[in-house]
Amino acid sequence: MSFDAAYQDQKLKSVGTRPLRPDGVDKVTGRARYGADFNMPGQLVARILRSPHAHARIKSIDTNRAEAVKGVKAIITAADLPDLTNGDAGTYAILDNCMAREKAMYDGHAVAAVAAIDEHAARKALKFIEVEYEVLPHVTDVDAAMEDDAPLVKDDVFTTGVEPAPTKPSNIANRAEFGHGDVEKGFGAADVIVERSYKTEQTHQGYIEPHACVANCNSDGSAELWVCTQGHFVYRQNCADLLGLEVSKLRVTSSEIGGGFGGKTHVWAEPVALALSRKAGRPVKLVMSREEVFRASGPTSATSIDVRIGATKDGKITAAEATLRYASGPYADMWAELGAMTSFACYDLENVKTVGLEILVNRPKTTAYRAPSAPMAAFAVESAIDELAHKIDMDAVDFRIKNAASEGTKSSYGPVYGPIGIGPTLRAAKEHPHMSAPLGKNQGRGMACGFWFNFGGQTCTDLNVNADGTVTLAVGTVDVGGSRASLSLIAAEELGIEYQDIKAVIADTATLGYNDMTDGSRGTFSTSMATISAARNAITVMRERAALTWDIPVEDVYWEDGHAHAAGAKHDNRAPLSVKELAAEAGNTGGPIAGHSELVADGAGVSFATHICDIEVDPETGSSRVVRYTVIQDAGKAVHPSYVEGQYQGGAAQGIGWALNEEYIYGEDGRLQNPGFLDYRIPVCSDLPMIDTQILEIPNPNHPYGVRGVGETSIVPPLAAIANAVSNAVGVRMAHIPISPPRILAALTDAADG
Amino acid sequence: MSFDAAYQDQKLKSVGTRPLRPDGVDKVTGRARYGADFNMPGQLVARILRSPHAHARIKSIDTNRAEAVKGVKAIITAADLPDLTNGDAGTYAILDNCMAREKAMYDGHAVAAVAAIDEHAARKALKFIEVEYEVLPHVTDVDAAMEDDAPLVKDDVFTTGVEPAPTKPSNIANRAEFGHGDVEKGFGAADVIVERSYKTEQTHQGYIEPHACVANCNSDGSAELWVCTQGHFVYRQNCADLLGLEVSKLRVTSSEIGGGFGGKTHVWAEPVALALSRKAGRPVKLVMSREEVFRASGPTSATSIDVRIGATKDGKITAAEATLRYASGPYADMWAELGAMTSFACYDLENVKTVGLEILVNRPKTTAYRAPSAPMAAFAVESAIDELAHKIDMDAVDFRIKNAASEGTKSSYGPVYGPIGIGPTLRAAKEHPHMSAPLGKNQGRGMACGFWFNFGGQTCTDLNVNADGTVTLAVGTVDVGGSRASLSLIAAEELGIEYQDIKAVIADTATLGYNDMTDGSRGTFSTSMATISAARNAITVMRERAALTWDIPVEDVYWEDGHAHAAGAKHDNRAPLSVKELAAEAGNTGGPIAGHSELVADGAGVSFATHICDIEVDPETGSSRVVRYTVIQDAGKAVHPSYVEGQYQGGAAQGIGWALNEEYIYGEDGRLQNPGFLDYRIPVCSDLPMIDTQILEIPNPNHPYGVRGVGETSIVPPLAAIANAVSNAVGVRMAHIPISPPRILAALTDAADG
Repeated sequence: MSFDAAYQDQKLKSVGTRPLRPDGVDKVTGRARYGADFNMPGQLVARILRSPHAHARIKSIDTNRAEAVKGVKAIITAADLPDLTNGDAGTYAILDNCMAREKAMYDGHAVAAVAAIDEHAARKALKFIEVEYEVLPHVTDVDAAMEDDAPLVKDDVFTTGVEPAPTKPSNIANRAEFGHGDVEKGFGAADVIVERSYKTEQTHQGYIEPHACVANCNSDGSAELWVCTQGHFVYRQNCADLLGLEVSKLRVTSSEIGGGFGGKTHVWAEPVALALSRKAGRPVKLVMSREEVFRASGPTSATSIDVRIGATKDGKITAAEATLRYASGPYADMWAELGAMTSFACYDLENVKTVGLEILVNRPKTTAYRAPSAPMAAFAVESAIDELAHKIDMDAVDFRIKNAASEGTKSSYGPVYGPIGIGPTLRAAKEHPHMSAPLGKNQGRGMACGFWFNFGGQTCTDLNVNADGTVTLAVGTVDVGGSRASLSLIAAEELGIEYQDIKAVIADTATLGYNDMTDGSRGTFSTSMATISAARNAITVMRERAALTWDIPVEDVYWEDGHAHAAGAKHDNRAPLSVKELAAEAGNTGGPIAGHSELVADGAGVSFATHICDIEVDPETGSSRVVRYTVIQDAGKAVHPSYVEGQYQGGAAQGIGWALNEEYIYGEDGRLQNPGFLDYRIPVCSDLPMIDTQILEIPNPNHPYGVRGVGETSIVPPLAAIANAVSNAVGVRMAHIPISPPRILAALTDAADG
Repeated sequence: MSFDAAYQDQKLKSVGTRPLRPDGVDKVTGRARYGADFNMPGQLVARILRSPHAHARIKSIDTNRAEAVKGVKAIITAADLPDLTNGDAGTYAILDNCMAREKAMYDGHAVAAVAAIDEHAARKALKFIEVEYEVLPHVTDVDAAMEDDAPLVKDDVFTTGVEPAPTKPSNIANRAEFGHGDVEKGFGAADVIVERSYKTEQTHQGYIEPHACVANCNSDGSAELWVCTQGHFVYRQNCADLLGLEVSKLRVTSSEIGGGFGGKTHVWAEPVALALSRKAGRPVKLVMSREEVFRASGPTSATSIDVRIGATKDGKITAAEATLRYASGPYADMWAELGAMTSFACYDLENVKTVGLEILVNRPKTTAYRAPSAPMAAFAVESAIDELAHKIDMDAVDFRIKNAASEGTKSSYGPVYGPIGIGPTLRAAKEHPHMSAPLGKNQGRGMACGFWFNFGGQTCTDLNVNADGTVTLAVGTVDVGGSRASLSLIAAEELGIEYQDIKAVIADTATLGYNDMTDGSRGTFSTSMATISAARNAITVMRERAALTWDIPVEDVYWEDGHAHAAGAKHDNRAPLSVKELAAEAGNTGGPIAGHSELVADGAGVSFATHICDIEVDPETGSSRVVRYTVIQDAGKAVHPSYVEGQYQGGAAQGIGWALNEEYIYGEDGRLQNPGFLDYRIPVCSDLPMIDTQILEIPNPNHPYGVRGVGETSIVPPLAAIANAVSNAVGVRMAHIPISPPRILAALTDAADG
């Protein structure tokens, strides 16, 4: 669809204001219903048996003793989820991950599940399930997995994307390359070259709410699923594929969501709950424990990245190259490809090459985590950029400004940019008081840039005008960060009515057309496109109703300020008709007033940010503390600025945790040693300063209000900004994330020894 | 909207077949979720305190002691439901009926309500609420209420519809008159005149499921209601009006429904549950007991009816007149008006006059019961018609055929008929083997005709085509009698796909535009109109997608047999595209495929039936038994014949119960003496023969498939058919319904005495 972008120059009444959030009262009073807050009469409780081995062949599973436990109603293994994938590798990976088939691929991999009348019976039955394993050699480290003699996670994986095709299996699932120009020629023209290897550890999204669902599978092939998810339409498709259900017969309702950040874009236990319900003939409730969330819901990739950048003495980058290895767990994915695409997206480069390698390891199946793959790539690249600026003795901001991409730049991953925000955020950083504030003892300042594509995708919206003139807006993108508020503002703006008169709800899969997930920072962008279209369709209907009421041609009716107006001098005597007046008469003028939209939201606008960070390091303990943090990001148009600021702060907070503390720690035995918030340390309130934000608004020309998408870019720069700050504070380049106290101490010791 | 009616002549593939009902498995396995099957975390239990007096001024209510009962969280009286009706009498009646304000108007009228942590606490608290009543004189009988010295139910009611306006208040709320010609002149031309008074007693719909809801009212003005209802959009409007909520902020979800028959078109306790939730700040569950259902949910009217009909010796009716008094409970309604409209609707009359009088009594607020008001009017008129046929020694069927209305007849209530089914059902009855079957000892045969208007009204439908080509059909009319099946058949027919590939759901009020209730036999008629429109809109989208796929003009694409076809010789090489193929590519051709419709379904077709009944009477005990029963009714088009037959049988069964046994029995004290199924006797399986059905199909020209509406007419003839049968069996005219054993014995005794 195409939009009239004239709105961008108009005075907006609703968009850009900061009204109260519509879900606020529900959430603070505890009434909001999350995944575990739903129950069905006669429901059973499910528990999953998980592999204690990082890699093991499943020789047999004997459930006889477990089935005899009183209260047990169904036990399933992979045999109860037959392979219906028709060779589709992506769907097979989801299936195999939900319930191990031939092999347990990681510590925590599901091997069987029980549904029983209560938790006690279910847990007891788990103990009586006898699994005979043949333990296999395992590999959990991304670099170790690439060694020639590494144990093979799968013995039938031949790297794709290389010529000639390899004849020997390996743990390298695929290779992807991006770039343009001639990097070797570029390095030849460089006065200075920085080359360094970086490593990041695996982290988890750390959402507050564990995965939870109630599944109800009927004998007639119909089923219901109530679930905490970022995308109930996608869950519907995945579960229908895995269980062989017709899409229309599976009704999925999304609950409120206690955080997702990418981790709830993927089914983990929901197909298991459905299969248990199908076998037991009763509804089944399944709530994962925190330990299960860590062991068996998709964390992000650990990475190993080599970066090489060359520049002239006066600060022009002549060549840039990166090789990025992303550990994706036991199943091939596209994380390295995404990382390779984002690596140098901030810069205008003549010669650039990035190679992404997807590495299989015996760790949980990875999934998206906020701007997936970008933070690690940015950590490596922005660290090297900083080092290079130091080497040529140039201010790190100026160096970046000199090389920043701008409108017309051919990006390192292919497309040519339209108007973009990297230059403006860098210039805003340069002028920001934070940049020139004095530093204290043992403090260092770092800065870094970040990029995210943003996405559009399939979206549907139904807008219904009620008899009292209030409006119900049914959308299909789960509200993870305030979209009910922002979409209500958009609808209010279009219709010319008050924000308070709009009620946005997340429709279930039976009552709205298909929607892609709330991911890729597409929620507000794409659903506002559909909302605008639906609102304009409703306005067309209201103009027709006014024309009918006045008995004049619809062409003589125009819409302004929430009213139908009769145009021209001959209609001067007609008082404009409000939405409320038109709605009250709808039953007499043709029926209920509505507008609908189904579309593919093309034209998402790329997003850039620059972060500034001050950090103080205790040289005796190696502990560090963020003392000041500033986020500057282009929002396109900030529909509800408070939510935008919240997204900026949230991404920064998660990035800080990732940079300083969070990591999956595996033992020699291949088992996860810290599957809990006590040992896996996410930042708490007292760990963080107030995070300052600055919203820039460089409109996305493809959206009537200029909206881009704001949820993800804010997690991209923090790893590098903090690494740069710590490196500046301690005088040693920190190249391994997280920069935890032991690593800082080790670096200081190495430097002192060196 | 207007439709191409060409389909009527086409061969139909889905419409008219008898597939399995989609809600069958849910219902027989007990998974279907009815009103009481929903629970919310932290919900309270509500109970209502009801007046033990038929008429009493409420002098004071002291809730102090009750509030002190442990576990009590809120107590409300009328003060907690302030009058927001702005003088709207209809809404005020709903409000006052939900919670008595100045006076308790009938035995069972709600005066206070409690929400507590459990049923025990709630019941205990009820006992501690102290209500001081000033008992007033009452009147419960419809004729007694019209006497000059009758106690006034309300002292400010002045009959409307009479000239000059009365200056004295009375229990006659309104008067409505219909007809044409000159009845006195017509009676002057008659050779024979029959004149008789009839009476019917108050009955209840007797649905299996009592009223039940869970209400959740938030402090921010938003609220949810899960409820068993025939019309959740109407409940939303009523509750929003009574509680001062914005319509968009109140989300109402309808449960499965265990019968309604008109009784669930009206809010009884739902506003009370919402008010309790608002006061307690917690969700509140309210389930009425059977006793409460009888005492305080709307039964139908008791009536008193005078009929006078004159005819020539050769069987031509020259004049017909009726005065119909309907007892509406304590609030004015339109039952007498409806009765007056339906009285003579079956006949082609030159001179006809009907007068309806709405009478207030101290009984529960009445509401619709299947073809509301028509069965009583038909009982009186069809009894008189039978008596008249006997008097002129003419066969009762022939007499009716001679006087039957037909296309072009100006009906007794105004409109001129299009093609109608009264003549065909009568002729079918005449030819039916039942009519000529021999009768046994003490057996009599009766027949009677019935009429119902059928309605259309506001309707919305969303039809979404899923990625696998299956279709989700979201409708807003509650499925009380199989509409999910019939609407799926309609959608399958339009789209050209299989019935099994359609899943129809009842959308809640937040995800679909306004729908009138499932009443007036409008569900399948009106929602199929919207479904056809939505399906055709979806076909338009699919034609566009095919055109895009083929890169040809959309005008060159036509739809047939579930496929897009390219028209013309130049496109001969293009294989047609199926719904499944188009759906699979939707994401690449513009987004999800959908069709929507919002409309007012005009053009409902009137409905007629003729019933034949054989009854055997035991002259010693007065007990009677229906030995054979045949329903012949015009369906327009029977979309799913099994459901149509079910409706015919269900209406006949209810009519038989009404005719023979059911009645509200009030004591001298104005209290209901039989509020339970032990003493209020509805027919059980063993009371009834198999009810034979014959479906006639005289298409409704205003519907593409000719659909009329089948739910209601079947309850109209039974009262008269049974009365005529009993009268023929015992030789005494039975003019008081129910014709219970004591009344038959009394009639036999009177006849023997006379």
